[in-house]
Amino acid sequence: MEENDRREEFSIRQVTDRTFPEFLHLLEALACYEHLNPPDDTARSRLKSDLLQDHPRYEAYLGRLGDVAVGFVTFFFTYSTFLARPTLYLEDLFVLEQYRGHGLGGRLFDFCRNEARIRGCGRMDWMVLTWNEPSIPFYEKIGAARLGWYTYRLEGDCL
Amino acid sequence: MEENDRREEFSIRQVTDRTFPEFLHLLEALACYEHLNPPDDTARSRLKSDLLQDHPRYEAYLGRLGDVAVGFVTFFFTYSTFLARPTLYLEDLFVLEQYRGHGLGGRLFDFCRNEARIRGCGRMDWMVLTWNEPSIPFYEKIGAARLGWYTYRLEGDCL
Repeated sequence: MEENDRREEFSIRQVTDRTFPEFLHLLEALACYEHLNPPDDTARSRLKSDLLQDHPRYEAYLGRLGDVAVGFVTFFFTYSTFLARPTLYLEDLFVLEQYRGHGLGGRLFDFCRNEARIRGCGRMDWMVLTWNEPSIPFYEKIGAARLGWYTYRLEGDCL
Repeated sequence: MEENDRREEFSIRQVTDRTFPEFLHLLEALACYEHLNPPDDTARSRLKSDLLQDHPRYEAYLGRLGDVAVGFVTFFFTYSTFLARPTLYLEDLFVLEQYRGHGLGGRLFDFCRNEARIRGCGRMDWMVLTWNEPSIPFYEKIGAARLGWYTYRLEGDCL
């Protein structure tokens, strides 16, 4: 398949009750790729209600090549008290390995960037694993800045 | 004033329409401390509506010593698709310089940690300026882990 064909038939749509199983399938593929445990039954149930409730805790969009869900993004809105503007925080961006190298990840990223603009955000933030060197030149090329901050976390028994 | 007196008369209350001016005053003191521009009139107006609307974009709490507002925290909820749980994200924690050294910052921090627990969060996250060395031993003592991720940001003309 030619590059242009792939790009033209690529669509991005918000996850609905009907497409939630496809989203979950890709979320499990991401966990597998990162050698993490996939969500168990109760986590799957929370992921669904947290997404599809009136005031969702996160938003999720499927990237589809023809009929096949091949990637997804999840994001939510944080807030900058300095700018007095929301920030689009990109949580997950994933494309199945066999569909990489055709710019689909870039299409998903640009979709989020555009959502940030049209929703009045002052910023778009995301985290990159320090060993994920391949993605870094892409982000720096588009003008992203690496922040000079440490992120700290309390979780599990420490919370 | 004795340490115990200070701790006993310290209270933490959510910012309301009535106490918003005191919160704004402290937010300006934080901007001044960080050598950043304080919010202009339109930013002040957005900060107020984003806080006091039905589904606030952030939450804000004032720490008060007797009648005097001496510090504040702001936070919001992000989401971990891995845990299928919200995360309490601590955005700002500030105590006026002349009231530091009495554990009031720790009281504000513990308040957020407790909110994270009672609201069903799996994590509490926050960022620390890399030059803010004094705070790091405190965070490590309470069991916080520094994440091995870079945070990237698009903002201004690059967004």
